[in-house]
Parts: sequence; C-alpha cells; structure tokens
Amino acid sequence: MRIVIALGGNALLRRGEPLTAANQRQNIKTAAEALAPLALKHELVITHGNGPQVGLLALQNAAYKADEMYPLDILDAETEGMIGYLIEQELVNLLPPNRQCATLLTQIEVDRNDPAFKHPTKPIGPIYDAAAAKRLETERNWRIAADGKHYRRVVASPRPIRILEQRVIDLLVSQGIIVICAGGGGIPVISQEDGALIGVEAVIDKDLASALLAQEMQADLLLLLTDVDAVYQNWGEANTCAIKRISPQAIKTFSFAPGSMAPKVQAAIEFVEQSGGAACIGSLGDAAAVINGEAGTLISKEETETVWWD
Amino acid sequence: MRIVIALGGNALLRRGEPLTAANQRQNIKTAAEALAPLALKHELVITHGNGPQVGLLALQNAAYKADEMYPLDILDAETEGMIGYLIEQELVNLLPPNRQCATLLTQIEVDRNDPAFKHPTKPIGPIYDAAAAKRLETERNWRIAADGKHYRRVVASPRPIRILEQRVIDLLVSQGIIVICAGGGGIPVISQEDGALIGVEAVIDKDLASALLAQEMQADLLLLLTDVDAVYQNWGEANTCAIKRISPQAIKTFSFAPGSMAPKVQAAIEFVEQSGGAACIGSLGDAAAVINGEAGTLISKEETETVWWD
Repeated sequence: MRIVIALGGNALLRRGEPLTAANQRQNIKTAAEALAPLALKHELVITHGNGPQVGLLALQNAAYKADEMYPLDILDAETEGMIGYLIEQELVNLLPPNRQCATLLTQIEVDRNDPAFKHPTKPIGPIYDAAAAKRLETERNWRIAADGKHYRRVVASPRPIRILEQRVIDLLVSQGIIVICAGGGGIPVISQEDGALIGVEAVIDKDLASALLAQEMQADLLLLLTDVDAVYQNWGEANTCAIKRISPQAIKTFSFAPGSMAPKVQAAIEFVEQSGGAACIGSLGDAAAVINGEAGTLISKEETETVWWD
Repeated sequence: MRIVIALGGNALLRRGEPLTAANQRQNIKTAAEALAPLALKHELVITHGNGPQVGLLALQNAAYKADEMYPLDILDAETEGMIGYLIEQELVNLLPPNRQCATLLTQIEVDRNDPAFKHPTKPIGPIYDAAAAKRLETERNWRIAADGKHYRRVVASPRPIRILEQRVIDLLVSQGIIVICAGGGGIPVISQEDGALIGVEAVIDKDLASALLAQEMQADLLLLLTDVDAVYQNWGEANTCAIKRISPQAIKTFSFAPGSMAPKVQAAIEFVEQSGGAACIGSLGDAAAVINGEAGTLISKEETETVWWD
C-alpha cells in the first residue's frame, strides 16, 4: 500500500513537556519505532506538525526589532529542517541499510484571495499583555486576538491548493524512497500578480495538507496519528464512545473539538470523498494495529453502517 | 554538463552586512539570477555555506541553560531549511514552469576517530570575555579558544567521508531536477559502536563536502563561487596576479589564506585529482563567464602550463 502518515504535534511532544532537543529526539525515536515496521511493508510518505517548534523560534524572534525579525515562512522552513532531520535519522537507524529516506523542503501554494487572510484565527508565538499587544499591532502590523486573559498574534490558515514539490515526491516514492515532507503543513506561498511565488505569514493546517498530498499521490491510505486512540463521539461526556468504522457521510453528522479532532476528521473526509482511498485516525503507538483495523477509527466509503468499539 | 555549484557564505551575505531576512532574500535573488541561465543548459546541484546563519542561531541559543540548548547538528538542519527555501523559491521563479527544484536535507558521515575531534579549530557562535569563556568551558564542556582579544567556542572540522542521501541526489539529478543540498557542508554524523548514526557538534568544510559530492556524482565541473573574481598568487601584495588556468600539481606549490581561499583550492585539487572533471573558482556574478573560461580560475589536469590573467 501507499500510505501518507501525518504525525500530530502531540505525537511528537507530550502535552506539557518542555521543548528541549533531548525530549524531541526521544519522542521522535519512539515515533520511528512505531513507523519502522510499516516502512518494511509499505510505501510511506511522512508529514508532521511544527506548532511548538515554530512557537519557540517565534519567541526567540520576538526579542528583535521589527526589521530584524524573520517572517513565519522562513521559520517554517527552519522547523522543516529541524524536525525532518530528527525523523530521518531515527527512522533510518531502524531500517535495513538499503532503505533510503529523503527529507524534502515543501512549499504549498495557497490562494492570495483566500478569505482566511481577512479573518486570521491561528495563534502563533508568545502571549502578551494588553499594552504590548496594542503596541505590536501598530509597530509590526500584526493581527492580535484575545487568548484567555492574555493576547496572542494570530495569522491566517488558508486552504492548501498545490504542493510545489509534488512531482519530486512522486518520483522518490515510486523508487521506494521514504519521503518526509510538508512539515508544519508546508510553507505557504502565494502567486503574485506577475506569477512569481513568495512566502506568506500564514499556517496551513497540517492535516488538510496531508489530505491534499495523499489525494495527489493516489495514496491507498491517509493515516492521521495523534495521542488519542480513536475518534470519540461525545468526547468528555458520560456516554462517550469510540468509533471503529464509519462512512464519511455518517461522521459528518457528529461534531468534534475545534483545533484538535475536528481538523483531523475534516481532512479524513476530504481525502476519502475525493479519492479511492480510506483514512484512519488513531494513536501513534498503535500505528500498525490501526492499519490492520485492530485499533483506531477507519473512515471509508465502503462502511455502510457505523461500528463502535466496545 | 553535470555541475556542482558551491555558493560561499560571502556570496550570499556581503561582508559586514546585517543578517536580516530581507538582506538574505535580496542576495539570494541576485545569486539566483546568476545561476538561472546555467540551469537552462546544465544539470545542476547547488550547495551553500551557513556560517552567519548558524552563528545567529547559536547566539539565540547562548541565552539558554545548558540542557535547553540545541546542539549544532540541529541548528545546521535548521539553516539547511532556511537557506534552501530561499534559494529554491528565488531560483524557481526565474525558470520555466516545467523545471523542478528540490531542497534535500543532507547528512554527511565523518569518522568518529577523525583527529579533528582532538584538535577543534572552527570558531562558532558569539564572542565571550575570559570569565565567561572559563565558565562555559566547565558548564557546557565546550572547547574555547582565543579570538583576538576575545574568546569563542571552537568545534572540530572533520573530513566528509560519505553523503547519506547520495542515491537520492543522483536519482533526482538524473531526472533533470535541480537539487539544493549539503548546506553548511552537510550535517555531520558519526557511526556509533552499534552502527547507529548520530549527529555530532562539528562543522564539515562546505567546499570539501561539495568536492566529495561532485566526485560521487561524476560531475564534469565543480564550480566554487565566492566574492573574489579568481584565485590570486601573492594576494594583498604588490606583485599579486590572478590565475587563469592551472594544473592541480602546479597550484599545490602556492599558498593561500587559511579559512578563505585555501579550503577552496584544496577542495578543487581533491576533486580534480580524484575524478575526470575540472574545477573553477570565481565570483558569483561571473558564474556563466567562469564556466566559459572568460573569468575566474580553471584547475584541470589538462593544463600543462600555468596561464595568468593580464
């Protein structure tokens, strides 16, 4: 099978854990142990989140003057290098010597007229008090939004429309090379009026980017891995229940936590509806079991009725 | 022709210029304008330095406690993402739509017994006073060396022996894809006793890494681009003279500035002696003229006598 695997930020850094290099390497080693058995049997493309990492770089940058700050597209590129490196190194160490892996810098085109640019919603970087927020709004031309008692910068989260390195990814995968790409949802770029592409300060949803990638590659399976073992209906309530198998039509009738399970379910629905493949959502440690239907949630057109885990 | 082009740090950031994102993008745009005409005629692999960029990240890191600092191999990976992204974006904007470009994270194996590890010489990161230097030596287990009136951390500069992603690079180039790789000389990794690879805090000379890459790829030409228009004998003296064409044997009898022209000449000699190809050293803006023999210095086995520029 050809599988696109999206590693959630929470699968690479446990909630609340400090973002040190040692913690990242340890968690990525655990992730590589879960993925290596799949790499022996399947064609793999691996994508990953970058929320905490880009947050750290944004925090370092926040000390700079406006004209010394690095824009978000460049910080994204840095995190693609950092995280891709660790995944590649830990994964290759678990594979036979003839198995190659490639980490590819990935730019993804978004529409410069995407309505998300008028309504930025994605928080990024450190928290500020009201006075700092007001000052930064003017000085740096940032959009700032309330975040609990504090304030944070918010950027647009436009839809991915084209992966610039798609042909390169296809070529590598067709030659049996494991590809790590589209880190952090890819670096968002827009086409300017003269046709030239330029990076923008935005964040593409990593799961939607992975769904587009899976669709373009005609993947058999989109596997969205996180730190939750399945998709739950009524999460956090007494009657919560884990979904085993479901159709895209049926799962659309439920609602899920925004910014957490909702974007994963949305990405799964988009891929399944627009391709011949299926999608699974589950926990990183269960990766092999999820593929075999022994854990997680399967979303497929072939499911005529919803099946629940006991 | 198949050409490996190494972009020197001084070709990407003018001496003394502040390391802002805008300056980097502007200089890389100029570099892309020099390289785009070559991309239309030749197979290209592009490597680049990362000295100022990794220095900036090391400076940001210097504020951290020892266990929060990111090691140099991870900072290298970040700069491969940052610089590779800018080169790829600016270059692709100048090429026809069907021409693909790929930026590849690159790890290069070095010998864990390389004598360079006992005698680290490569300065990295910010300068310190004597008291801070002494404290960091103990606290962080760093090697510190005098740098004029100040002190700086020094790391090993071991020889590159194997490019881990070589097969991937070969595959992409053979399909007409322009590859950007081995940024900053590649991320240095060593093979541990159990055979597993791990990153080390060292810096591989970018020109030697480019020479190894050119040799492994059977490149016709290794093109080392910097901000100097040719290799000069007696640089800085009254009788200085620019070399037009020379054999590797003949250029070995001259001496050049360490850390500047000497490593470029050494890399050129190694490639020319160990391959069927030639090497050129010259200025980035002259790239096309250097290839045509109208500028720069050509080092080739076929040169039986040394020819000088008027």
